[in-house]
Amino acid sequence: MNNPNPTAAILIIGNEILSGRTQDVNINFIAKRLAVLGISLAEVRVIPDIPARIISAVNELRAAYDELFTTGGIGPTHDDITSECVAAAFGVPWEPHPATWDLLAKHMGSEFNAARQRMATMPRGAVPIVNPISLAPGFSMANVHVMAGVPRIMQAMFTALEPQLRRGEPIAMRAVHGLKLREGSIAAGLAAVQERYQHIDLGSYPFYRESGSGVAIVAKGSDVAALESAISEVGHIIAGEGVLPIAGEPPL
Amino acid sequence: MNNPNPTAAILIIGNEILSGRTQDVNINFIAKRLAVLGISLAEVRVIPDIPARIISAVNELRAAYDELFTTGGIGPTHDDITSECVAAAFGVPWEPHPATWDLLAKHMGSEFNAARQRMATMPRGAVPIVNPISLAPGFSMANVHVMAGVPRIMQAMFTALEPQLRRGEPIAMRAVHGLKLREGSIAAGLAAVQERYQHIDLGSYPFYRESGSGVAIVAKGSDVAALESAISEVGHIIAGEGVLPIAGEPPL
Repeated sequence: MNNPNPTAAILIIGNEILSGRTQDVNINFIAKRLAVLGISLAEVRVIPDIPARIISAVNELRAAYDELFTTGGIGPTHDDITSECVAAAFGVPWEPHPATWDLLAKHMGSEFNAARQRMATMPRGAVPIVNPISLAPGFSMANVHVMAGVPRIMQAMFTALEPQLRRGEPIAMRAVHGLKLREGSIAAGLAAVQERYQHIDLGSYPFYRESGSGVAIVAKGSDVAALESAISEVGHIIAGEGVLPIAGEPPL
Repeated sequence: MNNPNPTAAILIIGNEILSGRTQDVNINFIAKRLAVLGISLAEVRVIPDIPARIISAVNELRAAYDELFTTGGIGPTHDDITSECVAAAFGVPWEPHPATWDLLAKHMGSEFNAARQRMATMPRGAVPIVNPISLAPGFSMANVHVMAGVPRIMQAMFTALEPQLRRGEPIAMRAVHGLKLREGSIAAGLAAVQERYQHIDLGSYPFYRESGSGVAIVAKGSDVAALESAISEVGHIIAGEGVLPIAGEPPL
């Protein structure tokens, strides 16, 4: 698939995901937004709250992709170490950010203690990302965008950040599915369609639901006419199996 | 945190996760099981269905950790390339697995076509992982465990695999939470508790729910007495803020 779109990675910094305590929903939110923006999500990593791990992952991923989005570890407690690790990754001081310091000091008054002052401390050169929910901002440091782990706050920060991101061709999707369809019966036909439409990405996904089981075929790419044409051909292949092709994804 | 437990990584092979089409639930299932088995989940990666990416990620992660669990890409269609990539990662032939070939041929009869024969083709030396749902097995190749992406099938495969895995000390969790509590007010106290209990892992997680907002403190480790003692100390810190400490995690 020929894709000149900007590329991106997500780095989830979170013991709570690795321990199974928390079901991640940030990957899916960011992935959907990036598809709309035409930014190609090429990798996701989840790592623990360990400084050496954070520093090396930030440096590896910011070099490999156009944008890196991190979530988690920017609150006031001892396990919130993302911000100072990003400073270390860039080799710059971690220091008070004057405008953020003033903002939080004014809002919090005598409650602006040492722990909360950490949230106004950033790598030198960082640009804050507005937090309309709980005030303490995220920040962008070059192509690294550092956001909260709490989904509601992360989503608000991402929305504030979006206008700054370089966009590409939006990635559209078209789908068709068939009930009681089996992947192995249509595999050769699908492979031939993928061969003819090399600039789209054709995926085959079996599903098992209360409402019925079958296979969904999803075409992804920026050329919508090609997506629709390829999905139409897949519809004929499904019909050739004696199964009714149904437009779109199967209901949840 | 001193942790002699075996280590593990998860590799999610799936364009459907990166495109935002699918909300991953496999990470959370495996993470929870690994905690019970005393296997320390140290990293998760999500990568696209691209051979060079799969091969390099498999080789990097199987060298870095005791166990590697992969999900996705083992069906019969053109986008199912995990199995041959694992063979390439190990530098062994990808060839028919006789027992699996016989099993599928017998069950599928004349429907055992070229596409389905791919599901009976494995890296030389692979040991099948039973699939009680849809028959075609996953496999273990040394410390790499290759499973389906469909959650129901992956879960059945993981359950079949569990008895083969070397276990460590189960990772227990104890939690306390407070409503209307704010992280910045208890941060110094929490840091002191973490300092005194260095072999446990103390995390602070703000939550925002319809039923109320606040902060949950979660202690994780294999020394249950230490977890309970640390959480009790945290309860006193919360009470010192004039907030009632409530045992356990906040309700969903």
